[in-house]
Amino acid sequence: MTDATFTGGDVEAFKQAFRRHAAGVAVITARDTDGRPVGFTATSLASLAAVPPLATFSTARSASTWHALENTDHVAIHMLGSDNRVLAEKLSGHADDRFVGEHWHEGPHGVPILNGVTAWMLGRIVERFHVAASAIVVAQIEEGALGPDSAPLLYHERAYHAPRPLA
Amino acid sequence: MTDATFTGGDVEAFKQAFRRHAAGVAVITARDTDGRPVGFTATSLASLAAVPPLATFSTARSASTWHALENTDHVAIHMLGSDNRVLAEKLSGHADDRFVGEHWHEGPHGVPILNGVTAWMLGRIVERFHVAASAIVVAQIEEGALGPDSAPLLYHERAYHAPRPLA
Repeated sequence: MTDATFTGGDVEAFKQAFRRHAAGVAVITARDTDGRPVGFTATSLASLAAVPPLATFSTARSASTWHALENTDHVAIHMLGSDNRVLAEKLSGHADDRFVGEHWHEGPHGVPILNGVTAWMLGRIVERFHVAASAIVVAQIEEGALGPDSAPLLYHERAYHAPRPLA
Repeated sequence: MTDATFTGGDVEAFKQAFRRHAAGVAVITARDTDGRPVGFTATSLASLAAVPPLATFSTARSASTWHALENTDHVAIHMLGSDNRVLAEKLSGHADDRFVGEHWHEGPHGVPILNGVTAWMLGRIVERFHVAASAIVVAQIEEGALGPDSAPLLYHERAYHAPRPLA
């Protein structure tokens, strides 16, 4: 078998390689400098350490929510379950529509908390690393809650999935 | 419904929240300062940007492979498929046994490349951000290859899974 090789300049091949990686779906929320709720779906969420409890995610600095993340201290990180697909679609839809509805409430520090997620955590932003036109954000978890224990929501090949155990 | 709340000092709750997140399984490999192949499974791999092609992953700086990552320029990042479970188990087993066998070959810059993965990418390390006792590594992709197109391997609730499309 000969693999199909590609070079670093081949953007499509790079994207295709990452389409072979599946990721859990998280939603990051915050308040912008005008106090409006902002949020977006992220597939880059990872645990960085348990002591102290640190989580990391990344975003393009051209994203509509970057200005809020750059200027706020606190974010909420939500783990989505396979029952939360409508929530994922809402939070990845048009920015003006993401908080229209009864799917969230105001949490600690006024940060929007989504209802019915499998877990949420309030984090204080401790690092914002700029790399090229992106940023890696590190948040230290200050509190959180566990919600209904449904299977995690996955994003793979531009569609939502749930995990099935391997035999 | 009242969610079960927790505080930032509750390590078990933090871990439980992250167990509700599923992640794709990647393997990172490199050569250590003595030229020996090293590698580990990572669930923190994410695409950071496509132009330039940047990938990020994190690790504890107490990990046996950190010394190699701190002292080398190049790493290989492998996406694992559901057919690669044995490979995942091997690369998360005892450090001395991870490269005993015919499951890898020498790639560009001498970096170990695992055979039969769904994709691999050679990256030049461009950033190492230290946060508490962990590090976030950013690599710029210089070349790579797409292998067999099997479903991605997932890690969730301390077991391997594959994705199933949501109806």
